[in-house]
Amino acid sequence: MTASTALLTDRYELTMVDAAIRAGTHDRRSVFEAFGRSLPAGRRYGVVAGTGRLLELIEGFRFQDAELEFLSEHRIVSAPTLDWLAGYRFSGTITGYREGELYFPNSPILVVESSFAEGVLLETLILSVLNYDSAVAGAASRMVSAARGRPLAEMGSRRTGERSAIAAARAAYIAGFAATSNLEAGRTWGVPTMGTAAHAFTMLHDTEEEAFRAQVAALGPGTTLLVDTYDVAEGVRTAVRVAGPELGAVRLDSGDLLTLVSAVRAQLDELGNRDTKITVTNDLDEYTIAALAATPVDSYGVGTSVVTGSGSPASGMVYKLVARQDNAGEWISVAKKSPEKATHGGRKHPVRALSASGIATSETIYVGAAAPSVVPGRMLHTRLMTDGVADAVFTGPHGVASARERRAIALRELPPEAFRLAAGEPALPTVYVDAEPSATRR
Amino acid sequence: MTASTALLTDRYELTMVDAAIRAGTHDRRSVFEAFGRSLPAGRRYGVVAGTGRLLELIEGFRFQDAELEFLSEHRIVSAPTLDWLAGYRFSGTITGYREGELYFPNSPILVVESSFAEGVLLETLILSVLNYDSAVAGAASRMVSAARGRPLAEMGSRRTGERSAIAAARAAYIAGFAATSNLEAGRTWGVPTMGTAAHAFTMLHDTEEEAFRAQVAALGPGTTLLVDTYDVAEGVRTAVRVAGPELGAVRLDSGDLLTLVSAVRAQLDELGNRDTKITVTNDLDEYTIAALAATPVDSYGVGTSVVTGSGSPASGMVYKLVARQDNAGEWISVAKKSPEKATHGGRKHPVRALSASGIATSETIYVGAAAPSVVPGRMLHTRLMTDGVADAVFTGPHGVASARERRAIALRELPPEAFRLAAGEPALPTVYVDAEPSATRR
Repeated sequence: MTASTALLTDRYELTMVDAAIRAGTHDRRSVFEAFGRSLPAGRRYGVVAGTGRLLELIEGFRFQDAELEFLSEHRIVSAPTLDWLAGYRFSGTITGYREGELYFPNSPILVVESSFAEGVLLETLILSVLNYDSAVAGAASRMVSAARGRPLAEMGSRRTGERSAIAAARAAYIAGFAATSNLEAGRTWGVPTMGTAAHAFTMLHDTEEEAFRAQVAALGPGTTLLVDTYDVAEGVRTAVRVAGPELGAVRLDSGDLLTLVSAVRAQLDELGNRDTKITVTNDLDEYTIAALAATPVDSYGVGTSVVTGSGSPASGMVYKLVARQDNAGEWISVAKKSPEKATHGGRKHPVRALSASGIATSETIYVGAAAPSVVPGRMLHTRLMTDGVADAVFTGPHGVASARERRAIALRELPPEAFRLAAGEPALPTVYVDAEPSATRR
Repeated sequence: MTASTALLTDRYELTMVDAAIRAGTHDRRSVFEAFGRSLPAGRRYGVVAGTGRLLELIEGFRFQDAELEFLSEHRIVSAPTLDWLAGYRFSGTITGYREGELYFPNSPILVVESSFAEGVLLETLILSVLNYDSAVAGAASRMVSAARGRPLAEMGSRRTGERSAIAAARAAYIAGFAATSNLEAGRTWGVPTMGTAAHAFTMLHDTEEEAFRAQVAALGPGTTLLVDTYDVAEGVRTAVRVAGPELGAVRLDSGDLLTLVSAVRAQLDELGNRDTKITVTNDLDEYTIAALAATPVDSYGVGTSVVTGSGSPASGMVYKLVARQDNAGEWISVAKKSPEKATHGGRKHPVRALSASGIATSETIYVGAAAPSVVPGRMLHTRLMTDGVADAVFTGPHGVASARERRAIALRELPPEAFRLAAGEPALPTVYVDAEPSATRR
C-alpha cells in the first residue's frame, strides 16, 4: 500500500512537465476540462460520481521521498523537475458539476484552472476516478428506476478490483441504491452495509436446519435466510420452522426467478409468514430487475452488472486543455483538430435549461462568457476547490449523502423518455452558445 | 487510504463467522476452491493473474483497532467474534495454479485449506483480485497474439479505478505487454514504464514546432513525437525537421489508422527517416490490432479495451466450499444443488494432459485423490502459501517476472485453434476423473 497518490499517474504527464519546465512554459495559466464526448452507448443520461473522493485524492497528491527516488533512479525527469515536484501541491481552482448531478454529451463536468504543469499532472487521477465511478453510477441509476421503489443492495465487490469495489459501493449508493455488502465503503463513506450468509454456511453444517438455527441464534429471527442451497420449497419450510413468524426474509440466488418468486411468496403466505420478505440476487441487471417488477419480490441484490457499468465499464470521459495564456498573459482558446476527436475550446458555463413547469429542455453551454442571468434554468457549475483546498461540503460521508440527494433532485427534472431502458438518444440535447468566436491557434 | 485489507470484505463473511463461532462450527477444517464455471464469452483460454499480489494482501489481512471499532460500533458481530477477529491471521495453506498459467472452465485455480472461519473471510478479497486481474490478462494475451511480435504498451489507467489501474498494468505485463504508462506499476511491480507527451503539450505552445523543440530538448531526439494534433503530414514534416534522422518514433492517436500508417511510413522514408518508428494508440482492441498487422506499424498503445477485459470486465470466478470435516474429523465433500450453479465437491488435482509432442489435449481434473504418476502431462497445482506465509517466489516484482515467463511457456503448449480471435469453444476440454464417489450431504 502506498499513501501518496502521486504515482497514480501516466508517465507522459511527468515528461510533459519536464519539457515544459525546460522550455519555461510550465507556468502558463491553463484551463483543463473533463467531459464525455458521448454517453455510454444508448444511455439517456449520465450520473456524475467520484467528485468528492477525487477532491480528497488531489489534496493527497504530493511527491514524497519515496516517489522522488523512484523518478530519479529511473531517470524519468531531470533534476530541476525533481525539485519542482518535491514542492508540488495543487494550488489551483476546480469548478464543476456537483457529485450526483446528471450529465450529457460534452457537459463540462470538471474544470481545472491552474498553471499548465499543476493541471496536467492530475489528468490520470481525475479520469480514473470520474470514469469508473460515473460508469457505476450511470448503470446503478437505471437499475434504481427499474426497481420502482423496491430497495437495491450493491454486492459486486468480488467482481471488480478490491479498491474499485469501495468506489463502486459509494457510487451505487449515490445513484439510489439502499446499501452495500462492502464493509470498507461503510467505514469510509457511511454507506449502510448488509449481508447475512452464503451457501458455504449451509454446507458447513450437517443439515440446512442446523445452519439456519445457528444463523438465527446469532442474528435473530429477523435475519435473511438463504433458502436455495438444496431444494427451495424445503428450504422455505425449514426457514419458517426455525425462525418462526418473525423471519425477516428469504433470499433466492438461483433458478428461474420469474416463477420462483411467486411460488415462494405463496408458500410463505400459506405458512402464515405474510411479513417475511423475498430478496433475489441472481446475476441481475436493469433488464431482469424490470422484468421482476411483475413478481412479488421485495428487494434486489446486484453484483457484476452494477460494478462493471452494465456493459459500459468506463464512461469515456477525457481531460483536455481548452484555454491557456500566452507570454503576454492573453487567453487563447485551444482545440485539437483531428476530425473525430475535435474539442470545443474555451471556458464553459453550463446551464440546465428548464421549461416553465421545471422540466429540463437542454444542456446549454455558454462558451467564453457566463450565461446571461435571465436564462431560465439552473447553473450547473459550482466551486469545488479553491487554491488547492477542497470545499468540505463535498468530501467525506457528508459529501456522499449530499450527492445522493442531488441525483434524486436532478432526476425529477428529466422528461419521461429519460427513464426508458431501451437504447436511445440522450434525453437532452447539448446546445452551445458562443459568447465570443473561439480562436484556434497552432 | 487504509493500510489493512480486512474490510475489503462483504459483510456476510463476518456474520457467517459470528454465527459459526456461536454454533461451535467455525473451526471445522475446510477446503475452499476458486474457479470459473466458464471462460469469458467466446474465449479459448484464460490467463490466471493476480495471485502474487493476492498472497501479499492475504498476509496483510488483519483486524486492527480501527477495523474492530467499526465492527463493534455498527454491531456487525458479537463480542466473542470481535475477540476472535482481533487475533485473526490466516494460518492455512493455499495451493493453486501459478500466476501466468492458463485456465479453462472449472480449473481449480486456487485451493484454500484452513478452518471454515479463516477461509470464508477471504472470499471477497480472493475473488476481487483474481476476477479483475485475470479479466485483464485474458484480454491482453489475445492482443499480444494479434500483434504478432510487435510490442504493446498498456495505457488504460484513466479508464479504470485508480488502484485497479496498477493491477491492470501488472496483469497486462504478465500477459506479454512490453510496458505500461502507469508509474505506480513501475515502482511496485517493476513493470517498464513509457510515455512522452499528449496533445495538451502541443497546444500549450504557440506552434507545433515550438512544442516539438521543447520535447526534444528535454527527452532527446530519440523521443516519440505526437504528430496528429493539427495536420498529420505537416506534423510529421515538423517532427523530422526538429528531431532529425534520429527521431525515435511518431505517434498517431486519431484518424483511419489503416491508411494513415502506410502514408506516414512512406513520408518518413521519403524524408530519410527509415529508422523512425510508428506507434498507434487510437481505441485499439484485439481486432483492430489484428487488422493493423497488414500495415507498417511498429508498436501499439492500448487503453480502455485492455483494462476493461475487452467486453468481459470480470472473469466470473467463484469461491466455493468443496469439502469440510464433520465433528468426528471425517472429510465430507459438499456441493450446492441448484441446477445452473451446481459445483463439483471434493479436493481437486488438475493436470494439463499433453500429447507425445507436448501439445495440450485436455484439462484433466482428478477428484479426491492425486493423479497417478504415470499420467502424461503437467501437474498444475503448486503450494503458494504455507501456514499463512506466502512462498516468496511468487510475490513482488520477481513473482511478476516469473508469471510473465509462465504464461509464455504455457501458451506454447496450446493447439493452434486456441489463437483464433473469433468466438468459440475453450481450446481444451475439461475432464473429471473421480477417484472416489463424491458424497453430497445436507
